[in-house]
Amino acid sequence: MTNSAGQSKPAVAVVGASGYTGELLVKLLLRHPHVRLAAVTSRQHAGKPVEAVIPALRGFGGGLVFTASNPEELAADDAIDLFFLALPHGVAHDFAKPLVAAGRRVIDLSADFRLSSADLYQDYYGTAHPCPELLSRAAYVLPEYAPADWKSAPLVAAPGCYPTSILLPLLPLLRTGAVKTEGIVVNSSSGVSGAGKKIAEDYLFCERAESAKAYGLPKHRHLSEIEEQLALAAGRPVVIQFTPHLSPMKRGIITTIVAPSVVSSVEEIYAVWRDLYENTPFVQLLPSGQTPDSQHVVGTNRIDMSAVLDPRTRNVVITSAEDNLMKGAAGQAVQIMNLWNGFPEEAGLQ
Amino acid sequence: MTNSAGQSKPAVAVVGASGYTGELLVKLLLRHPHVRLAAVTSRQHAGKPVEAVIPALRGFGGGLVFTASNPEELAADDAIDLFFLALPHGVAHDFAKPLVAAGRRVIDLSADFRLSSADLYQDYYGTAHPCPELLSRAAYVLPEYAPADWKSAPLVAAPGCYPTSILLPLLPLLRTGAVKTEGIVVNSSSGVSGAGKKIAEDYLFCERAESAKAYGLPKHRHLSEIEEQLALAAGRPVVIQFTPHLSPMKRGIITTIVAPSVVSSVEEIYAVWRDLYENTPFVQLLPSGQTPDSQHVVGTNRIDMSAVLDPRTRNVVITSAEDNLMKGAAGQAVQIMNLWNGFPEEAGLQ
Amino acid sequence: MTNSAGQSKPAVAVVGASGYTGELLVKLLLRHPHVRLAAVTSRQHAGKPVEAVIPALRGFGGGLVFTASNPEELAADDAIDLFFLALPHGVAHDFAKPLVAAGRRVIDLSADFRLSSADLYQDYYGTAHPCPELLSRAAYVLPEYAPADWKSAPLVAAPGCYPTSILLPLLPLLRTGAVKTEGIVVNSSSGVSGAGKKIAEDYLFCERAESAKAYGLPKHRHLSEIEEQLALAAGRPVVIQFTPHLSPMKRGIITTIVAPSVVSSVEEIYAVWRDLYENTPFVQLLPSGQTPDSQHVVGTNRIDMSAVLDPRTRNVVITSAEDNLMKGAAGQAVQIMNLWNGFPEEAGLQ
Amino acid sequence: MTNSAGQSKPAVAVVGASGYTGELLVKLLLRHPHVRLAAVTSRQHAGKPVEAVIPALRGFGGGLVFTASNPEELAADDAIDLFFLALPHGVAHDFAKPLVAAGRRVIDLSADFRLSSADLYQDYYGTAHPCPELLSRAAYVLPEYAPADWKSAPLVAAPGCYPTSILLPLLPLLRTGAVKTEGIVVNSSSGVSGAGKKIAEDYLFCERAESAKAYGLPKHRHLSEIEEQLALAAGRPVVIQFTPHLSPMKRGIITTIVAPSVVSSVEEIYAVWRDLYENTPFVQLLPSGQTPDSQHVVGTNRIDMSAVLDPRTRNVVITSAEDNLMKGAAGQAVQIMNLWNGFPEEAGLQ
Repeated sequence: MTNSAGQSKPAVAVVGASGYTGELLVKLLLRHPHVRLAAVTSRQHAGKPVEAVIPALRGFGGGLVFTASNPEELAADDAIDLFFLALPHGVAHDFAKPLVAAGRRVIDLSADFRLSSADLYQDYYGTAHPCPELLSRAAYVLPEYAPADWKSAPLVAAPGCYPTSILLPLLPLLRTGAVKTEGIVVNSSSGVSGAGKKIAEDYLFCERAESAKAYGLPKHRHLSEIEEQLALAAGRPVVIQFTPHLSPMKRGIITTIVAPSVVSSVEEIYAVWRDLYENTPFVQLLPSGQTPDSQHVVGTNRIDMSAVLDPRTRNVVITSAEDNLMKGAAGQAVQIMNLWNGFPEEAGLQ
Repeated sequence: MTNSAGQSKPAVAVVGASGYTGELLVKLLLRHPHVRLAAVTSRQHAGKPVEAVIPALRGFGGGLVFTASNPEELAADDAIDLFFLALPHGVAHDFAKPLVAAGRRVIDLSADFRLSSADLYQDYYGTAHPCPELLSRAAYVLPEYAPADWKSAPLVAAPGCYPTSILLPLLPLLRTGAVKTEGIVVNSSSGVSGAGKKIAEDYLFCERAESAKAYGLPKHRHLSEIEEQLALAAGRPVVIQFTPHLSPMKRGIITTIVAPSVVSSVEEIYAVWRDLYENTPFVQLLPSGQTPDSQHVVGTNRIDMSAVLDPRTRNVVITSAEDNLMKGAAGQAVQIMNLWNGFPEEAGLQ
Repeated sequence: MTNSAGQSKPAVAVVGASGYTGELLVKLLLRHPHVRLAAVTSRQHAGKPVEAVIPALRGFGGGLVFTASNPEELAADDAIDLFFLALPHGVAHDFAKPLVAAGRRVIDLSADFRLSSADLYQDYYGTAHPCPELLSRAAYVLPEYAPADWKSAPLVAAPGCYPTSILLPLLPLLRTGAVKTEGIVVNSSSGVSGAGKKIAEDYLFCERAESAKAYGLPKHRHLSEIEEQLALAAGRPVVIQFTPHLSPMKRGIITTIVAPSVVSSVEEIYAVWRDLYENTPFVQLLPSGQTPDSQHVVGTNRIDMSAVLDPRTRNVVITSAEDNLMKGAAGQAVQIMNLWNGFPEEAGLQ
Repeated sequence: MTNSAGQSKPAVAVVGASGYTGELLVKLLLRHPHVRLAAVTSRQHAGKPVEAVIPALRGFGGGLVFTASNPEELAADDAIDLFFLALPHGVAHDFAKPLVAAGRRVIDLSADFRLSSADLYQDYYGTAHPCPELLSRAAYVLPEYAPADWKSAPLVAAPGCYPTSILLPLLPLLRTGAVKTEGIVVNSSSGVSGAGKKIAEDYLFCERAESAKAYGLPKHRHLSEIEEQLALAAGRPVVIQFTPHLSPMKRGIITTIVAPSVVSSVEEIYAVWRDLYENTPFVQLLPSGQTPDSQHVVGTNRIDMSAVLDPRTRNVVITSAEDNLMKGAAGQAVQIMNLWNGFPEEAGLQ
């Protein structure tokens, strides 16, 4: 396949394309203007056409068929430029290791490489990190707030869905000292797809419809990733109270952040945000007093956010909304690829 | 109508029975074993059988027909023992005034008489209180935490839905000093019926399905009622950060409270709760670590609640769930009536 | 436990109380005024309090604990008057056989005893009927249309959810010849609880929310039961076209029946219906032109129905709505018990 | 705006872009590769940026602002090549008339020009057709089944959502005589957006969630359009029984068609379909026995369909699924534009 300038498009692959995130990655990459989706793998679906497994793609699957390639086989294929790993936590590293060793570039959507420290991983995941030597080589890339030199890393860890909705509003405020590092309280509500395609009684339609509840108290695994990034921005440890909730909807996350304020007007908050985000396509600042709605961002790669300053409590109250499967997963991974390859940041994401 | 002991059942009326709360009150009172629902009023539906307006009651409406009685006519009817006002805020007092003057007992489900101070009302509702002389005669009755002498008041203000879900967990903890009065952060998520049967674009199915969002920032009207009750329990002013949200479900409220802790173990929290709630039928304490689910309480008059103590932050994190139309409105009003009349507390609420 | 007249209430049991129908049966029987729920069994939940398994009953479980009693043990317990079997198809007969042999009365909510013929069972279920000798002793009881002598049967088969929504409107019309026996087309739409608490990808929240589809074409198992009853009413074979669908809701069934008409006005349809149903509490006839809505019957034991006569096609178009778990299952079983025991038909079902 | 080949893209406009269909048209046309969306009009929103009215477009609205242009002003603007009318029935003709008179091309998404006869319009809509002289000049264009000479018409009527889901499966079968013209029964279920953004109690979230019902019996307005097209294909009058239903979902239509069969195997049905649809991108034939699911087509311009032949009844049972706002409205209108302008049929619709 060649593009209009006569050059062949780089080939990419999705490893583990049978979950909700993997399916969406396949959809996004199939219609991406600058890459060619050359392979999709899934042990469960090996041999089946993509259209048979992802019915939303009927007629538009480009003839692609699932393969069951093992990590070594994939690593040996030098026709593929970049691999997306849409695998469960604790499995992704099995593929990342040989791919990186073979010089392939990898964007991992699991939690395997999001922490800088194997100790922290052990603390939150309860087992030793399976591949600590790669931790230091992986870059944690929130595209709007990425480290300067990330493009030279062999492996990128894409942020989790909750972290994205929390970090984008909060990182610049901590870095500039606009809010205090102590006393931050975060509540998030996620659509049910946040749990993946997990077949368990708790995720049956009749158990989740007309139902809302908190879960994962008080130490959700995502907390490790969130607090590590917050601390990097603040320049010292940040401990927050984070409570995730389930809402009876398929997709979408809303987050409400309460942070003790240092500034004296909400305009100062917006000034910090505008400074960083004004020219980014996927961060939308809503006027103070207007709150983002998850349904306005579902299907897009945007995060919408706004803030009020409460004179009664001196807290900044920030609300954000994103699509957990897009900006919180597959869309953000494509955005990372766009930047890594020098494509327009919005390519394939409009 | 006479009961099995040969005595006639007291007659009650519902004023304003066309909203979701009013409809549910009618259902509960029609099948209540100890009272007779003698009248339901609605200007909009006057002359129509209850069954025609509330289709869920087809065949079981007891021949009841809506009337358009005005406040003075209702007050003149001494056959009716007790009136439930299920009217919008700012309208209920028009009925409460003549009814109380005529010696009728009134349970008001609106916000008109929930605050003790006309100044506070003015601050939150933007207009002068229309009937300040009744404010001091109205009792604010959360049944599990009611003032000692409330039964002699002519008028009872039933708590709002958000306040109920917040006050029941928090009041005893503030009264006993188990949590600090500063730094409390509350987030709630409500089903759409919390907005009543308001016909506006924002409440259309296609606007609310698959949608979650915060609203009413930073100073929701319920805050005045919540903070006044918290202050009474704490013995000094309490200022909290409260953010309500909408969830795509019909009924149910979940609340997550983060409160800086004074105690050193979560067991102390449960001890305070058990002390007050052990023998109450409608407060269910879930084990620490188990979070209440709104769908388990919808259709019941219960509030389920639990707590964890986060050693990282020294906060108590409390989660509660109730049916906004039952324990948050109509069910609680019936519970108040039961206690006021000396009926079993659970009568008609099982 | 004794009732107000000093007589002890008869004891009943629910066998297999862990599915949606079983849970609802437990709720209905716990608050039933004329029976005592003496036992609930579930191999999966044996030893657990009912309140722990059915969170909606927290605080109101009456101290009941699940047992794992096997069929023979249950049959040996002569303190229990009547058994409800809320078991999967193909399992119920294992319990029905020893219970009937021991002289206990049984209401079976499964499909095991709904057909009169073992051959028909084999045709639709693909295996030989496991207990053909009981088939002829079981009565198929749609309460509003029950055979004259059903109360002397040892075993009652409660109708399925789809059949109930189809048979109540159609049986009297076929019996009186108001519609033709040929060319009848039936479409039904069910909430997801119709599939039971089946843990499979197809019933996950993310697979069913925002999704509607037909299934079970062209020969759904319920068809055998439906057509057998229609034939009994018509006095000759009736073959219909039946297509069930799934709707993204928890509970409720709506059915649309198109039947070639013999009558010349819709009033004749209503006359036939009124003749049979006028004094029954759970069949509500809506005016022609008004269509029943599933949400108006969910939580009740009612079926709402109405008809129009289309002058263009000469078809009667009938629409009905019921709660699949109530009139379609647990509520109807309680109604059967009420009639069998001589209780008021509505007892415990208001 | 010029395309990559240096030629300017043709400009199009959406008239009445404030409903669900209009919003979606704007989204599709903004990212369409071959046209430029030059104007969007709405009296209600005139002067507001598109991004403010359609929050899903925040950051991607291309600076477009709603105008309040009247029909004559629009007609006078010769820079715009083609107009989409996304207006209510009975309003569209006010714009169509001057636009056609001025030589503009028009794609009307309303029902104003879908019937060939003013008498039929009067019969179904209860008023005289406001613009009968244009009826004969309008082409009814179902893209996969369009009349040979439609591209020379000044005005195209895009089919309605229910009709599209019925006609695509049925037209070829009637034309080839594979099914009989008598005794056809059609049932459809639509998501709530089918009613548009109508602000009425019946469309509130709390009225539609967990609710299914039939409506519009027995003579829904769409019937006129459906039967006229069926008759054209069959070569003689076709009278069907059509019952639409509401399902508790935002988007999607499923249709179940029962048609007395002439053929002796379902393969003959598929052969007819393949003959017509094999090379069309948006009609997907599912294997017999597999039923289409609305959620697999929502967001796409596809219709999925399949058939079974029931040997018991000799009926063909056809099920289809489409997105009512895409293939049933906005997507189909863009598809028509693509064909009319000679663009690739899938342009902007993948």
